[in-house]
Amino acid sequence: MTQISTKPPSGMRDFLPEEAARRKRIFSLVEEVYESYGFEPLETPSLERLTTLLGKYGEEGDKLLFKVLKRGEKFERAIAADNPTEQDVADHGLRYDLTVPLARVVAQYQHDLPRFFKRYQIAPVWRADRPQHGRYREFYQCDVDIVGSRSMAVENDVCAAVSEVLQRLGFGDFRIHINHRRLLAAIMQKVGIPEEKQDGVLISIDKLDKVGRNEVMEELEQERGISRDVIDELLPLLGALPGADTDNMATIERLRGEVGELEDGAAALDDLTDILTLGADGPASDHFVVDPYLARGLAYYTGPIFEIRGEGFPGSIGAGGRYDELIGMFTKQDFPACGFSLGLERILVVMEERGMFDEEPARTDVLVTVWNTEFMPKSIELAKELRDAGFRVDLYPSDTDRYGKQFGYADRRDIPVVALLAPDEVEGGTVTLKDMKSGDQESVNRTEVVEWLKKTL
Amino acid sequence: MTQISTKPPSGMRDFLPEEAARRKRIFSLVEEVYESYGFEPLETPSLERLTTLLGKYGEEGDKLLFKVLKRGEKFERAIAADNPTEQDVADHGLRYDLTVPLARVVAQYQHDLPRFFKRYQIAPVWRADRPQHGRYREFYQCDVDIVGSRSMAVENDVCAAVSEVLQRLGFGDFRIHINHRRLLAAIMQKVGIPEEKQDGVLISIDKLDKVGRNEVMEELEQERGISRDVIDELLPLLGALPGADTDNMATIERLRGEVGELEDGAAALDDLTDILTLGADGPASDHFVVDPYLARGLAYYTGPIFEIRGEGFPGSIGAGGRYDELIGMFTKQDFPACGFSLGLERILVVMEERGMFDEEPARTDVLVTVWNTEFMPKSIELAKELRDAGFRVDLYPSDTDRYGKQFGYADRRDIPVVALLAPDEVEGGTVTLKDMKSGDQESVNRTEVVEWLKKTL
Repeated sequence: MTQISTKPPSGMRDFLPEEAARRKRIFSLVEEVYESYGFEPLETPSLERLTTLLGKYGEEGDKLLFKVLKRGEKFERAIAADNPTEQDVADHGLRYDLTVPLARVVAQYQHDLPRFFKRYQIAPVWRADRPQHGRYREFYQCDVDIVGSRSMAVENDVCAAVSEVLQRLGFGDFRIHINHRRLLAAIMQKVGIPEEKQDGVLISIDKLDKVGRNEVMEELEQERGISRDVIDELLPLLGALPGADTDNMATIERLRGEVGELEDGAAALDDLTDILTLGADGPASDHFVVDPYLARGLAYYTGPIFEIRGEGFPGSIGAGGRYDELIGMFTKQDFPACGFSLGLERILVVMEERGMFDEEPARTDVLVTVWNTEFMPKSIELAKELRDAGFRVDLYPSDTDRYGKQFGYADRRDIPVVALLAPDEVEGGTVTLKDMKSGDQESVNRTEVVEWLKKTL
Repeated sequence: MTQISTKPPSGMRDFLPEEAARRKRIFSLVEEVYESYGFEPLETPSLERLTTLLGKYGEEGDKLLFKVLKRGEKFERAIAADNPTEQDVADHGLRYDLTVPLARVVAQYQHDLPRFFKRYQIAPVWRADRPQHGRYREFYQCDVDIVGSRSMAVENDVCAAVSEVLQRLGFGDFRIHINHRRLLAAIMQKVGIPEEKQDGVLISIDKLDKVGRNEVMEELEQERGISRDVIDELLPLLGALPGADTDNMATIERLRGEVGELEDGAAALDDLTDILTLGADGPASDHFVVDPYLARGLAYYTGPIFEIRGEGFPGSIGAGGRYDELIGMFTKQDFPACGFSLGLERILVVMEERGMFDEEPARTDVLVTVWNTEFMPKSIELAKELRDAGFRVDLYPSDTDRYGKQFGYADRRDIPVVALLAPDEVEGGTVTLKDMKSGDQESVNRTEVVEWLKKTL
């Protein structure tokens, strides 16, 4: 017998019942809120063709894909070739997010979908990232997206929905940083940063809140090849780093003075104004922070972009934006689209750290004990009766243990009530019910057990 | 722009909202029944180490694993070697079932688990099988297992739980074929089939209900190398093929006469008797069929084995059994265990074919229409009000469409009520509500909209 490691694979996790049950409850709550906004469920396969996934997330994303081996003869042929690459020996990949699968689905079923497709999907995604605090290789995302409309009502809807989720979970202090890809384009144009350098510059300025002004200036000059003059124009244009108490409308007005004459600038600032105005009385309103430094890494965004941050959060706990051209990569027709993705695993980490979980409700209501082999059928009968009355009932799965062990088992599983059915009870037509919290025991007439449980549980 | 296939990968499926919602409902029902039997949820990663998976399912199973490429340098090194194999270039695999992950979990967390571990898991598994009717490469299994007890109360519990699921789904006509690995061993011993030929013989006799007696006899003689004399002893010993109306106790008595003097035979027949006796008044009782031909392919079974069949089912729709030695492959300690797995995808195929689904409930209650850009905030406000009152509300995500289009959208999405908020309504403090089924429209005071909806929906 070889000893095999029994840990889950690196960066992945097992969830024992208490934690699994809690996750289920949180997923249900997210689902309920998303449905209350009129979003509908979509299910897609965990695997996608590699051709579907590659080239959508940028070079770094392609590297993080878990790739699946070709099978049988196809694998044999590929591996026998000279210097086969990953793409030669693999044909599928585990999905990296829920947005690209949605884009594929819209392209495939465009004629079967309503004019606007509002879908949610709560499902795992996989990234071969270096595991660290709150970052896993298999993790759930909770996405809402609306396909088919260019109206900022869409941005308002998805921001409101995720804000309501966070509030229902007990978060009050999150910030939704918002920016606009076209505003960034206008700013680059205004200060004269050539197109081929823009991506690098965006990556650098996006880090300003973490590494500080001096380091960003150094990086821009030395790594991105931006002249000191341009940097001295760019940073004042971006302005002070915004925080929760920044006046968003003032930021927009100031930027309008700077880039409002450029087509991209005007359009972007109009969009941001619309989002703030439409959301003014909604659940997201107090959380918006217009942030010209926000860039978002993913290549596919084209309009407004969002990222949720907060004090003590391990990085962002949600992000999204408009991606009007992604679906067009799969089909000839253009489909505007915008969505928001909540990173549930990080949210759960924060909730755990802050002690935000409610007390766990019991997962099983009653344990029916077993006196001995002969009386096992009596216990099975009682368990059935109680199940039929709507209770969650565990039957002790052995006929050779004393009551002490059976109580210990109920205690270990946090089962609140134990039902005893010894010869005395069977003969007398009663059941002895033990309240595990108080330790009280009571002999109850068989016909009144259901009533007793309804009162006690 | 290269045109990429937008179909899901071969043997895998997308589920659009109507179907996805239906699947969610069915999963919930299974979950509810499993919890009513005291089973608790467990979550494990989709990926396992290849070493965890290999060698558990037999040679055929190993071939059907989806294997995941090593990454970065590890891949480079592996691919650069001479004649690398699948195991050289891959380090993980997608789980093939939910039983092996459970065994790994029990080995890993044995000291954190209760004395008996009753878990359910409803999750996808992956097999690179040839896709065919009702057989997919990614499909959900719904498993219940009890770890830690040798009592047949366990077999009774898991059989009762899956039977209740099937009954709640509307199935009345399924059969749970039961047999016992040790009974098969005793039969092999009795007629003198040497150990190395037993697996092949079991595969052949398991097919008798599909291919008939003559073909099995030919296969046994020509492919399995069994002499005519032995075959002429074996088949009468197995007896007539059992069906729904077979007398199970008579079958057991007859077999007791044949192999009851062998240790394996006696123990197996006692177990089968216990299962039938304990289950006599439970949900599985009318469905048991003692079937000495049943073999089950998976290598890890050691005791009673089950398979659910029925007229018109595409193969079995559920299977299980006792595997007292599987967990021992991961840890030094022995853990008896037994479980049952429902093949939900096949069940859904049969339900679809038989029209067993209830009418779909609405997924969204109300569509709030949008008169124009100026009035959009009014519509957002109404949508929020109705959501706060507990309704699932879609806001029309565009401000440029006429009512006709908006009604069409509601109709396409089967939203039962549409709320109109044109200038007249806003001015008069009313909302016009249209019942999409009857086509009736009614002007309702803004303060009475919630009441109206409660009555109508």
